[in-house]
Amino acid sequence: MSNKLVLVLNSGSSSLKFALIDAETGAASLTGLGECFGLADARISWKLNGEKHETQLPGLDDHHQKAIDVIVGIVNEMQVEDRLVAVGHRVVHGGERFAKSVRIDQDVINGINEIQDLAPLHNPANLMGIHAAMAAFPALPQFAVFDTAFHQTMPPKAFTGAIATELYEKYGIRRYGFHGTSHYYVSREAAKMLNKPVDESNFISVHLGNGASVCAIHNGQSVDTSMGFTPLAGLMMGTRCGDLDPGIIEFLMKKGWSQDEIFNTLNKKSGFLGVSGVSSDARGVLEAMEQGHEGAKLAFDVFTYRVAKYIASYLVALDSLDAVIFTGGIGENSLPIRREILKNLKLLGFVEDEKGNEDARFGAAGQIAKSEMLGAVALVIPTNEELVIAQDCVNLM
Amino acid sequence: MSNKLVLVLNSGSSSLKFALIDAETGAASLTGLGECFGLADARISWKLNGEKHETQLPGLDDHHQKAIDVIVGIVNEMQVEDRLVAVGHRVVHGGERFAKSVRIDQDVINGINEIQDLAPLHNPANLMGIHAAMAAFPALPQFAVFDTAFHQTMPPKAFTGAIATELYEKYGIRRYGFHGTSHYYVSREAAKMLNKPVDESNFISVHLGNGASVCAIHNGQSVDTSMGFTPLAGLMMGTRCGDLDPGIIEFLMKKGWSQDEIFNTLNKKSGFLGVSGVSSDARGVLEAMEQGHEGAKLAFDVFTYRVAKYIASYLVALDSLDAVIFTGGIGENSLPIRREILKNLKLLGFVEDEKGNEDARFGAAGQIAKSEMLGAVALVIPTNEELVIAQDCVNLM
Repeated sequence: MSNKLVLVLNSGSSSLKFALIDAETGAASLTGLGECFGLADARISWKLNGEKHETQLPGLDDHHQKAIDVIVGIVNEMQVEDRLVAVGHRVVHGGERFAKSVRIDQDVINGINEIQDLAPLHNPANLMGIHAAMAAFPALPQFAVFDTAFHQTMPPKAFTGAIATELYEKYGIRRYGFHGTSHYYVSREAAKMLNKPVDESNFISVHLGNGASVCAIHNGQSVDTSMGFTPLAGLMMGTRCGDLDPGIIEFLMKKGWSQDEIFNTLNKKSGFLGVSGVSSDARGVLEAMEQGHEGAKLAFDVFTYRVAKYIASYLVALDSLDAVIFTGGIGENSLPIRREILKNLKLLGFVEDEKGNEDARFGAAGQIAKSEMLGAVALVIPTNEELVIAQDCVNLM
Repeated sequence: MSNKLVLVLNSGSSSLKFALIDAETGAASLTGLGECFGLADARISWKLNGEKHETQLPGLDDHHQKAIDVIVGIVNEMQVEDRLVAVGHRVVHGGERFAKSVRIDQDVINGINEIQDLAPLHNPANLMGIHAAMAAFPALPQFAVFDTAFHQTMPPKAFTGAIATELYEKYGIRRYGFHGTSHYYVSREAAKMLNKPVDESNFISVHLGNGASVCAIHNGQSVDTSMGFTPLAGLMMGTRCGDLDPGIIEFLMKKGWSQDEIFNTLNKKSGFLGVSGVSSDARGVLEAMEQGHEGAKLAFDVFTYRVAKYIASYLVALDSLDAVIFTGGIGENSLPIRREILKNLKLLGFVEDEKGNEDARFGAAGQIAKSEMLGAVALVIPTNEELVIAQDCVNLM
């Protein structure tokens, strides 16, 4: 009961996710979500000791601060102030400056601010959470953990766009990658499962959720990843298109589509939703597919085919492979999607362990396939980004 | 000397490439190029019996017709009219309608016209050449051979964009692929080299020239290819960016870049030219690299890494692999580029045959590597699109 606790905050422009994490075990004694910030029905809900609570946030502004104030009240009631040692902030974009988690000071705040161009929706929102938390917990050290940091080890051949160098020099346009905390976590867990030092282990980590990305990990370090300058790149996702023939955008502009129409379509109406015409959620698509819906079957086929192509392509980034790791909401739970991806990898020697694949769901880790040819296995490992954030905070103190 | 001859025409908006091809041997007794159409210095040059000729084309318009008239004159002087049996036109885009070469009639002309939306620069130019040739050779059958046709066997999971289905239904936005004639040709030649029926052979064909594309070929049929709705997609090329994070385009638009600036940069100032800052030509980049130029080295690394990733990814499209085939100007000639791509494929078991790789250049075909793991080889096969066009004409007569 004396383990250190870290308050983990993930602040969006109109929302705030939070959790009180045991930095040893990863157990969350409190989880919650503030939402609809800036609107009349702004509210915050949380789960404590299995019970759900909700309260309105008054007024039309300053909801990040008001939400944090509610959280302070809850933490005080829990009487855990003496164990609460830090606040950890998930920050989306660390640019090229932040290759590791850092303790937040004015210089770090300036740094996050300076690269807000690269994440205009996310970094300013992250800073709102940071400012509110610093005001509410003035005695606690605060830390920033970046979604991009793990990928800063990518070599130039992987992060350089095949475009005019001027765009990199002038605007910083290159591959940054996201989901770094998740790829980091599952690769460490995979090394433990395989009883190998992580810095001698090679993985292809496949995070499939509403957002999705693949990461090639060489000796424990990211050497390539499918998201790019923005999280729109790479795999097909819930509503995002992933990699795209840029000529399609030119064609739509010539057809009179506005910038907003085009990027709204590519960000919000594509992916599972756009191809299936049914749902942005893989579960909804799978249900429709079982009922014979053709669009849903097509979305399933396109998604699984593209994931498998990315996995195969990352063999080029590695000199050996220990494991393909599935994680994220879809990766941890969807048996048919994992099965189809493995089928697509048959030329790489992967043979599904059907029992293993059926068992590794709903929070259970496990081995689901093996490739004798590559000397590799496929694993399912539930991700835990909050635990990484909490541990980074404690380690940096 | 009595073999049939076909006049092969490749008509652009301001140019016309032509060749008189022996449909049996592929030998070209006449080759030439009309260029600068629509300008005061419009001209046509040709090579006949090893000798070069050139003449100006008068006036400021109608240069396609004037060029064809010059060609008629040359053919008459060669006294081969009785052997000339057909005119074969290279047509860039056949949409979903033209899955094979066809004899041109009014219905076909209408069809090419109807899909000009998909290739607004190319199809109208191709039609100019067709009309001029029909006027000049009224007695000869004319045929259209499409760059997209070979890829019409792709399954929906490969040709469907991960975007709103509406875009396919309304505009025909999907993957079409190009370089089909080249991928078709080298796969047939590869099957001959391996003594296997082509319809039982699986290949990954890698056409690397100023334009570049990869094609997965299952039982002799295209099942995936890297170019997409337009020839801007896929691999990094001489000046083209290939696949791109679409978020980059949104970012540039927000920075005030115009549509023309953006797509001019992605089409004309990216690829080898943009990354190296030296040249759009692989030879120029390699020379600079040997002299220690860092941008050139980076362009070489990015290009070869991306080609290798595409090759590896297409293992997912096949259930076995007989050969990776290199063709096109770079693929047929560049030893260091092929060597680096093969190095990148080491986890797939490819081991270079150094002597073979050195020998297979400047028109020589040959085996350059082998993968025991996949039971596959890597071959170099010089492409010959004109021969395919000539043979298609003769076969259709």
